Amino acid sequence: MDQRLSLITLGVADVARAQAFYEALGWHLDGGVDDETDHVAFFQAGGLILALWDRAKLEADSGVEDRGGWGGVTLAYCVRSPEEVDAVLAGAGAAGATIARSGAKTFWGGYSGVFIDLDGHPWEVAHNPGWTVHDDGRTTLE
Amino acid sequence: MDQRLSLITLGVADVARAQAFYEALGWHLDGGVDDETDHVAFFQAGGLILALWDRAKLEADSGVEDRGGWGGVTLAYCVRSPEEVDAVLAGAGAAGATIARSGAKTFWGGYSGVFIDLDGHPWEVAHNPGWTVHDDGRTTLE
Repeated sequence: MDQRLSLITLGVADVARAQAFYEALGWHLDGGVDDETDHVAFFQAGGLILALWDRAKLEADSGVEDRGGWGGVTLAYCVRSPEEVDAVLAGAGAAGATIARSGAKTFWGGYSGVFIDLDGHPWEVAHNPGWTVHDDGRTTLE
Repeated sequence: MDQRLSLITLGVADVARAQAFYEALGWHLDGGVDDETDHVAFFQAGGLILALWDRAKLEADSGVEDRGGWGGVTLAYCVRSPEEVDAVLAGAGAAGATIARSGAKTFWGGYSGVFIDLDGHPWEVAHNPGWTVHDDGRTTLE
């Protein structure tokens, strides 16, 4: 198995509502499935795809049991300055996200905050001075 | 907010055990934090980083409440043939994963199965003939 990830699917209560939230953050839809029985939204996010799909359908498709709430996965979006952390958090709040942690210095020597999307998925927004956010959006450890 | 994702952190019960599982899948560690108070494992996975961290610490850091179990996030690893789906699932099973769904044709015209890692995080392993897995590992919608 190569060391890579192709797709991350976030289970949501209402795909159209969740899609509108990510569009309000500045994202644009790149594809999807939209018929009488289903709706899936696909966003091309660098070298992987982020999908939004009905959470109960994702539960069944993944062969897991959903107890509700958070399940041990947190996403992060790295930016190039502390000021940009605050700006992204403000934008997420304006789009309806919950700000779980405002921007502040962190124990690991950076600056970050957390917003939680409409379906409970947390995103840390972080400036890590030891990592590199490249012009094409890739984030690397050096 | 640009349309990209920098980091995905999987909360785990035992970072060393989880790290060994991903290494058994063929991954190699690229960095981490390892001191008396904490251990974090970082894998560079294309343009993003996959981290393994103590689930309770991640819960507190993310400002969420953990009810246990799955929380609406499923990862996927796209490959170039149905045969490769079966091979990756077999390797994951040999490394100790639970096979939640064996490789089979899917309703969306592809072929996939699902393994669940030692901490309950599901990975769909999929061949989607409509998407492209590039030589550098990026997966795109066209």
